[in-house]
Amino acid sequence: RVVVSGGTHGNEYTGVWVLQRLQLRSAELAEQHPSIAIETLFANPPAHAANRRFIDDDLNRQFSAATLADTTASSFEAGRAKAIAADMGPKGAAADAAVCIDMHTTTANMGCTVIVSSYSTLALRAAAFVHTHWDDADEASPPLPLRVMVEECSQCEAAHLASVARHGIEIEVGPTPQSLLRADVVASTERCLRLLLRYLELHYSGAEPATPATLPVYVSLGKVPFVDGADADGALPGAVVAASLQDRDFAPLRAGEALFEALDGSLVPYDGSLGEVVHPVFINEAAYY
Amino acid sequence: RVVVSGGTHGNEYTGVWVLQRLQLRSAELAEQHPSIAIETLFANPPAHAANRRFIDDDLNRQFSAATLADTTASSFEAGRAKAIAADMGPKGAAADAAVCIDMHTTTANMGCTVIVSSYSTLALRAAAFVHTHWDDADEASPPLPLRVMVEECSQCEAAHLASVARHGIEIEVGPTPQSLLRADVVASTERCLRLLLRYLELHYSGAEPATPATLPVYVSLGKVPFVDGADADGALPGAVVAASLQDRDFAPLRAGEALFEALDGSLVPYDGSLGEVVHPVFINEAAYY
Repeated sequence: RVVVSGGTHGNEYTGVWVLQRLQLRSAELAEQHPSIAIETLFANPPAHAANRRFIDDDLNRQFSAATLADTTASSFEAGRAKAIAADMGPKGAAADAAVCIDMHTTTANMGCTVIVSSYSTLALRAAAFVHTHWDDADEASPPLPLRVMVEECSQCEAAHLASVARHGIEIEVGPTPQSLLRADVVASTERCLRLLLRYLELHYSGAEPATPATLPVYVSLGKVPFVDGADADGALPGAVVAASLQDRDFAPLRAGEALFEALDGSLVPYDGSLGEVVHPVFINEAAYY
Repeated sequence: RVVVSGGTHGNEYTGVWVLQRLQLRSAELAEQHPSIAIETLFANPPAHAANRRFIDDDLNRQFSAATLADTTASSFEAGRAKAIAADMGPKGAAADAAVCIDMHTTTANMGCTVIVSSYSTLALRAAAFVHTHWDDADEASPPLPLRVMVEECSQCEAAHLASVARHGIEIEVGPTPQSLLRADVVASTERCLRLLLRYLELHYSGAEPATPATLPVYVSLGKVPFVDGADADGALPGAVVAASLQDRDFAPLRAGEALFEALDGSLVPYDGSLGEVVHPVFINEAAYY
């Protein structure tokens, strides 16, 4: 049982759109993937209807074992997470859903990033398969660049929706504004999804493809928060991402190079605290202000 | 009296940010522009605090003479428009504010577009001045492309905020997601604003600069609405802007070329109803879904 989910963040339209396209093609998909049962999950319809990331709390932070077990949490998303876990779970190796593929977008220039967790070797192999076949000529139009990111965490601690299934994979595509559909972002999301499903079909039919000897991946080192804003309501950040850094996701950033431009025009350099050279991602993601 | 406004749409952060930067530099600005009194207007603070385009109704559609005179309109923005008109107006040639420059952003790839109305020759001259000096080497970093758009309407009919002053000018910069600041979009907005204020200083000090013999402009022909969506809540449009059209604002589009891609993947061509060759703008603007 493979669950493809979208709309976990209600203002990320691409996943919701791709779900509708999957449903149109469900017979064809079933025929192409006889060894897996593909289901779709529209994760947060009320947030989507409100055109917001979430109603009360980020749904994609509600799935740690501790949060799922917390019966006192009363937010809409805490309850929604428990309902999803009851259907796909119980969270972990015994989960009813073998795989969850959750589709996201970002305002950052991240191309198509497959995000997997270190606890799942199946997810890592699936990401390697996508990486190997990303530029195959059988697909239409040149895709956005493909990268693999690995989050180092246990499944128990992992708080994102996809972690409920035995194996979780996130597709993160950008740049795209929130509340908008771009044909290139839709196409890259669908290309990634097609390759993941092809891998899973091979895997579950017993025809496991050869895994490449090495796979270049990016690993999270930490977060650099946005500078707080000075306006009374706090909607604006206190600084703009430096022009020299904007859109340079996955490119090297060295200590001393510009990180932010403050309101008065002064540049705030990267202080080297996460390493002398880092490769920033989610640069200027609107949801992280 | 020259009013620079921003935050007319609450989720267009650039204008609000630039207003804060203008306030920081108000003494310097006053010194550089002795012939004009520059004021700032944060047009819709409640919508900005809510991180929405508007609370009840689009504020930038509330300023026609008829709407301003309608005492039965009860939306928040209808009231806010009357308050702004009472301060800058009365709308028209006798308005207290000589000029209003209103700052906007778009998710479309429109570069920096100066939007003026055909009723104001001063606004047209100011736009020509910006066009002439856009690539002057005294400014830092290469700017986004600059174009001039002319709306053909009477001041009485004009419904946008800037139309309240004797002369109204809109600065529209993109692409940028809503609810986000990009350094390049901020820089182009500020470059445009600097040139407009320089022109107004010259004009009101009696040193009217020579106007170029010709000025290339774009004129609105009409609107092509987004296809309605099929999802129950209506948040998604019913089609994606065709990949071949996305980001091609101001480039020619011919009858028969692709306009949209429907949910089933079929392409919907442009039907030629606005002319055999048109130059689309506001392509995939999120607020127009």
